[in-house]
Amino acid sequence: MSDAIVGLDVGGTKIAAVAIDDTFQIIGEAVSPVPRGGSVSVDDVLTAMTQAVRAVTGGADPDRLGAGLPGMVTREGRMTVAPNLPAANGVDFTAELGRIFPSAQVVVLNDADAATVAEHRVGAAVGHDNVLMVTLGTGIGGGLILDGKIRRGAHGFAGEIGHMVLDPSGPACPCGQRGCFERYASGSGLARLAREAAMSGHLTSLVTALGGDSEAVRGEDVAAAARAGDGEVLAVFDELGWWLARGVANLAMIVDFSLVVVGGGLSDIADLFLPAAQRHLPELCEGWSYRAPLPIVTSTVGTRAGALGAAVMAVDL
Amino acid sequence: MSDAIVGLDVGGTKIAAVAIDDTFQIIGEAVSPVPRGGSVSVDDVLTAMTQAVRAVTGGADPDRLGAGLPGMVTREGRMTVAPNLPAANGVDFTAELGRIFPSAQVVVLNDADAATVAEHRVGAAVGHDNVLMVTLGTGIGGGLILDGKIRRGAHGFAGEIGHMVLDPSGPACPCGQRGCFERYASGSGLARLAREAAMSGHLTSLVTALGGDSEAVRGEDVAAAARAGDGEVLAVFDELGWWLARGVANLAMIVDFSLVVVGGGLSDIADLFLPAAQRHLPELCEGWSYRAPLPIVTSTVGTRAGALGAAVMAVDL
Repeated sequence: MSDAIVGLDVGGTKIAAVAIDDTFQIIGEAVSPVPRGGSVSVDDVLTAMTQAVRAVTGGADPDRLGAGLPGMVTREGRMTVAPNLPAANGVDFTAELGRIFPSAQVVVLNDADAATVAEHRVGAAVGHDNVLMVTLGTGIGGGLILDGKIRRGAHGFAGEIGHMVLDPSGPACPCGQRGCFERYASGSGLARLAREAAMSGHLTSLVTALGGDSEAVRGEDVAAAARAGDGEVLAVFDELGWWLARGVANLAMIVDFSLVVVGGGLSDIADLFLPAAQRHLPELCEGWSYRAPLPIVTSTVGTRAGALGAAVMAVDL
Repeated sequence: MSDAIVGLDVGGTKIAAVAIDDTFQIIGEAVSPVPRGGSVSVDDVLTAMTQAVRAVTGGADPDRLGAGLPGMVTREGRMTVAPNLPAANGVDFTAELGRIFPSAQVVVLNDADAATVAEHRVGAAVGHDNVLMVTLGTGIGGGLILDGKIRRGAHGFAGEIGHMVLDPSGPACPCGQRGCFERYASGSGLARLAREAAMSGHLTSLVTALGGDSEAVRGEDVAAAARAGDGEVLAVFDELGWWLARGVANLAMIVDFSLVVVGGGLSDIADLFLPAAQRHLPELCEGWSYRAPLPIVTSTVGTRAGALGAAVMAVDL
């Protein structure tokens, strides 16, 4: 019998688990809730992770286990800080999972890095050796493939592209800086751009439909109005696309990729802003005419990317 | 007899050549002019490069030859565009040098990448596996060491950090963008920041000494005035340090380095701005308190770094 290979993707609310075979095919999967609330301990989190593993192995212990976690994870697998999973702060997950599954080889990494590995090995980026992954959720995460491998940086924190500052006098970010990439080109950035447009007297149809309150504009409303063809709303998506291209152009000049893969929740409506991002990219990238085309595509692995990538990393150990 | 190993660093005005032994010690060096002017052909440039090689080998052909060139050089060694060496545009230097020295193994790369390799192997970054090199000259160049190797990107253009945009409404850059990193934290950036300060009514002593013309302020004047303790001028260097830190912080969040090495002509007066850059860095980097310290140091290889790094690359072939 071949090895039992499991990958977990632990988010702020859900744990996704997959079991894969040695060709990276998913042979089992499960989704379960993450314990939440002020009294949640690290043991509660570890118990939920353990149950998620066993749910996809039929109760058996894994031989190889990878876990993607939401926060700044060291190369050794210690969570330094996890804003969306505070019980995990400071925990050495490699050690804890090794204690729970003593016969398993364990690898722990950042969830966006795990998703990047999945896209590179079995998804949208197969065949590319230098890839930028951009995950657009509430914030922005990222992962870097260079010369064919995920690059996690000196301490494991590479890919924190959401806090690249694009305008030092821009809107304040909870991280303490101003004008971070994720203030513009994320789910929360979309809502902010839309509210800003509304308060400047645009989005009149949408605001009227919402009872006249510019402050009430939400990302979901904006997407629905764009689908309905509201021109003022489509202009907001063009602005989002411009900012995505602004960030991607900076990253392309710094690292020189052959492909950009966009994932995360916002990628479900990528058709509303990716064409604009692709269109704006040439004007925002120095020496564009000397460069090869840089396609920006959506992820193909989708919601399982984090768990699958973590499992692939465990195979590569 | 061991192999003859030669490295060249071709700039806009000078060619530096070194011969090294297999422990990377410099055993010969020479500096010669680059042919300049509108009638200069690629053959003139190649002849000058050939003479520079033979000047450090006692006339012999090299066994291994590396060349660092000023511009966007593909991984295969073709110069796509060289603003400071227009005769080189479009030239396949790997092929041309291979034709001139048929028995040599040849590698051609960007000059900042070559300098980065030198600092990593024999200079300020020995022992670090994840290093950012920032070369501060008229503009800004850069090189990235990740997981122990220079990373040249999909096409060879990685490290074009000088055109990372830090403020989309900032000063215009010849590249066509606005607010590029090199508009602030370079030699030309220093002069611009100083003129801006002068035109806002600061730098009064310096402007008076220059005959009252704010437009006449040059980087050299500013450095001399700072050495003399002019407080208003020192504030300009603090501003330069802030912008250097702003760019470095973005890059550190994206790639996660353990060391930053500053080279290039402006690094000769690094004592005037590096302490400020180091001081500002924590406030400009998300999650600083969870990160390891990030020292910013000056290069130790100095002006030979490009030629030496190119030679090291030829050894690594």
